Amino acid sequence: MKAISHNADYQYRVEVCYTPGQYPLYKEGMGIVVVIDILRATSAMVAALHHGVKDIIPVATIEEARQYIGRPGYIAAAERNGEVVEGFPVGNSPLAFKAMDLHGKTIVISTTNGTQAINIGREARQLVIGAFLNLTALTDWLLRQNDNILLLCSGWRDKFSLEDSVFAGAVMDRLLESGKFGLEEDSSIASKYLYMAARDNIMSILKAAPRRKRLQQLHLLEDVKYCLTPDQSTVIPVLRNGHLVPLEH
Amino acid sequence: MKAISHNADYQYRVEVCYTPGQYPLYKEGMGIVVVIDILRATSAMVAALHHGVKDIIPVATIEEARQYIGRPGYIAAAERNGEVVEGFPVGNSPLAFKAMDLHGKTIVISTTNGTQAINIGREARQLVIGAFLNLTALTDWLLRQNDNILLLCSGWRDKFSLEDSVFAGAVMDRLLESGKFGLEEDSSIASKYLYMAARDNIMSILKAAPRRKRLQQLHLLEDVKYCLTPDQSTVIPVLRNGHLVPLEH
Repeated sequence: MKAISHNADYQYRVEVCYTPGQYPLYKEGMGIVVVIDILRATSAMVAALHHGVKDIIPVATIEEARQYIGRPGYIAAAERNGEVVEGFPVGNSPLAFKAMDLHGKTIVISTTNGTQAINIGREARQLVIGAFLNLTALTDWLLRQNDNILLLCSGWRDKFSLEDSVFAGAVMDRLLESGKFGLEEDSSIASKYLYMAARDNIMSILKAAPRRKRLQQLHLLEDVKYCLTPDQSTVIPVLRNGHLVPLEH
Repeated sequence: MKAISHNADYQYRVEVCYTPGQYPLYKEGMGIVVVIDILRATSAMVAALHHGVKDIIPVATIEEARQYIGRPGYIAAAERNGEVVEGFPVGNSPLAFKAMDLHGKTIVISTTNGTQAINIGREARQLVIGAFLNLTALTDWLLRQNDNILLLCSGWRDKFSLEDSVFAGAVMDRLLESGKFGLEEDSSIASKYLYMAARDNIMSILKAAPRRKRLQQLHLLEDVKYCLTPDQSTVIPVLRNGHLVPLEH
């Protein structure tokens, strides 16, 4: 293993937090929080905004989302444990969102992990949404910011998630290269190594994981492939007054 | 990255928990807990028992350890933030322990991370201590056990620690090979990949980490090298009634 070449004279930090529960340990001095839930919440958010939805209201509870079922102009979405919650038209599948008439509508969504992470990070100066779908657009924008950046993985029920940390490593990789950003945390170093190991075949590493077998059983393999395909959009969702809208960049 | 070959028909699980704070999320059904604090508490514990200390009492607070300063037959040890706590003869340096007259004595020790992890895991059916120093002896013994195993990393102030998770990956690597043990958690998969990336040069990956630079500043490089050198002992410390003693194996 080669040591990570990393500029000791960096101007700003970029770090990785593996779970929402650990956010208090990593948040100090972090102006920008990037929320990551590759399978599937943040991928679905990028896809939905890309395909014409006006804005997205992430909510922590199913009950909050349920009030919007059937309300004109709104799409109520809720997922728990990989499945659409009963009574809702849609969960967190980006392909299901793509298949809907989204134009000008507002999605109100609650998911197992991703919307919880957004809720926890919402007091950051800027909160944006990351996914493989917007990887290059996101990193290009991050490179222009003059602030410390925390990559906040949504994880799985507050446990470490492989795909989230591999994606964080992909972002790290590009930001460290610039010399403008540096790291201090072991979690950040490990993410970069995981990305270096996974980048040539992200699907194969993910197939090893028993949790993803569950997604296969739920016939979500097309969704997974979609979520792992980089640069399908230049949309960067940003949180403004509780609503995710496309960032102008 | 090759997918980890792993027997889907395994009999028992081996998993990795990155921090003491996440232990409640990983402990269910785990009969054996291996506590890991490579730099330096669990390395020091193996070294001390190897060099003739009778037993070790890990305590959570400095105050508990302080009561034993100067008491005949006891060595009071306390470390916080990599340094010996004022008033104590020793902290958590394995080389400092080696240089002392340990024979037949009892060490009472409190450290920043390692003794906290022991305290959290103490209700497991068996709690043992892992370090590179006893890697082969530990894994040989674990392979003979018929129980689920949790590798509990002590971390750094409840954050992810690179050397602890790389060591956990080394243990995983050997246990998975047997086919008797399998994994379910993403943290376990990632540890194994980190070990695969690091195994040829563990020192170089650790040098990249700013926290280890602090150890260098404290002139602890010899300690670090010692802690990263595998198989210097066959001693496996096991917790019995609050005391760590050598396991008969």
